Amino acid sequence: MADRASDNDILVSEVGPRDGLQSIAAVMPTAAKKAWIAAEAAAGVREIEVGSFVPAKLLPQLADTAEIVAYAKTIPGLAVAVLVPNARGAAAAIEAGADKITLPLSVSETHSLANLRRTHDQVIAEAQAIGTMIAALPPEQRPHFEGSLSTVFGCTLEGPIPDAQIARLAAALMDAGCDEVGLSDTTGYADPSAVRHMIRLVRGVVGDAALTGIHLHNTRGLGLANALAALDCGLTTLDASLGGIGGCPFAPGASGNIVTEDLVFMLEAMGLRTGIDIDALLAVREIVTAALPDEQMFGFLPDAKLPLGFTPAAMRRAA
Amino acid sequence: MADRASDNDILVSEVGPRDGLQSIAAVMPTAAKKAWIAAEAAAGVREIEVGSFVPAKLLPQLADTAEIVAYAKTIPGLAVAVLVPNARGAAAAIEAGADKITLPLSVSETHSLANLRRTHDQVIAEAQAIGTMIAALPPEQRPHFEGSLSTVFGCTLEGPIPDAQIARLAAALMDAGCDEVGLSDTTGYADPSAVRHMIRLVRGVVGDAALTGIHLHNTRGLGLANALAALDCGLTTLDASLGGIGGCPFAPGASGNIVTEDLVFMLEAMGLRTGIDIDALLAVREIVTAALPDEQMFGFLPDAKLPLGFTPAAMRRAA
Repeated sequence: MADRASDNDILVSEVGPRDGLQSIAAVMPTAAKKAWIAAEAAAGVREIEVGSFVPAKLLPQLADTAEIVAYAKTIPGLAVAVLVPNARGAAAAIEAGADKITLPLSVSETHSLANLRRTHDQVIAEAQAIGTMIAALPPEQRPHFEGSLSTVFGCTLEGPIPDAQIARLAAALMDAGCDEVGLSDTTGYADPSAVRHMIRLVRGVVGDAALTGIHLHNTRGLGLANALAALDCGLTTLDASLGGIGGCPFAPGASGNIVTEDLVFMLEAMGLRTGIDIDALLAVREIVTAALPDEQMFGFLPDAKLPLGFTPAAMRRAA
Repeated sequence: MADRASDNDILVSEVGPRDGLQSIAAVMPTAAKKAWIAAEAAAGVREIEVGSFVPAKLLPQLADTAEIVAYAKTIPGLAVAVLVPNARGAAAAIEAGADKITLPLSVSETHSLANLRRTHDQVIAEAQAIGTMIAALPPEQRPHFEGSLSTVFGCTLEGPIPDAQIARLAAALMDAGCDEVGLSDTTGYADPSAVRHMIRLVRGVVGDAALTGIHLHNTRGLGLANALAALDCGLTTLDASLGGIGGCPFAPGASGNIVTEDLVFMLEAMGLRTGIDIDALLAVREIVTAALPDEQMFGFLPDAKLPLGFTPAAMRRAA
């Protein structure tokens, strides 16, 4: 897979083509998806979650995921990530050549049943099957395998989830063969203190190296504050969605990924190198709005523009 | 003046009736202002910037400030703050009985000339006159006097302002008789690293006790992340505006105070006691929207609602 760290301090992982597109009714044409992915990669985005291997009848918006993965793999230096709901999806992802596979495990069993229609034990069994499948591959063909702890900051159906349950599920994912676990604020319930607490809790179980990333929503406006808390704890991979499109259609009122443009601005303003050219990133919005004319795009930076005299992180380092 | 700290951890200072109303064309009726202030105080807000003593021909929206101060002073436990542009305004504020007087000093001289039509030396001279005026009062009648360093994170006209200039102006305000200085991101240029840097810089000049508050905008979506950075540095007073109305009409593209509702949610979610009842605070929006039907109200929490199982900070402490 592509070098996910490279010279940069922070990996901004774009999830719009998966999380964004699965949350809206419109189906983006395959050619537009390719143009979007190519433009974001050209702007310096090093990892993009390009789709999900789910049955087309469930998510027709992502029915072209195999073709999109094949296309994205032709872009030099891009880590191509996909979501999979189960081992069958993982097999398809491996066949397509994905660099990274993410299996969500909702720590709220109620949400897991509503979302994936599976109990915790059933999801862990899928993780084990995926782990076994990956271990059987030659090392150079193995995708990075992440188990994503979703609804980890609370569930719209159950409320807060006990720490012990989260710790147990994180350990079970690692035992099943995951390379790492991620934290996902599916419901937009996180706050900075909860982010810090959860990182400490889960790292205590899986080790620091096996928790590097977080998926945050901006449902209650705290998305970037939560990102800052995660950065302060040493996380280095932050998911975001161009224009903030997307969220979780199964968690009522929980829409709204953090906005890639605003996140990259915050990071670069802080002197953290993302490798992303902000002006080029902002220009990608035109591709998405042209392909999805009826969808609302979010973000503050696109209207406010960069501050006068703004200096990207890499130029500060060079100065 | 009212006890600004009391049992709470953080003082959320509502600036909507001043900063919000001065930035919009509509003039809110005096009765509606009173209802707004009374309702926010009843929700637990302990400090409100209720107006500005500027000539009515410049800001007709705030022409009733003396009447509003007199009314607000009748509310038990409320610290009544006002903005003043000069010593003449301060004299009016003192006569009206304001608990706190804030004099803005734009660290960008270009912005100072555009905003207050005064050079730095002229503003410092006004600060000295105000300091002398306050010192001549009996101790129990002295208002708290803050010098607010505006455009401190950069200016839309000048770009970044040199640290040495900021340090010099902070010292000059304290020498003039200010009880403390505040930081104001007038232009929405701040980022969390800049907030931390600026707090260290200014505290190095004025001492920790003389910098406790910050005024942040959400122009580029970083308002709450910047607030978190300020909290981490130990600041305890955060300005915010109900519904995020307001900003700086003299800094193009720089509108958007941080939203009181979202800020209070973040603080309470983090276990920091504000003394504010979130449901009661949310209900205050109805007063403002009824009085300003054409103004856009911002904020995420009002739409998203509180998380299932949300526990306010005071209840966590009691548990």
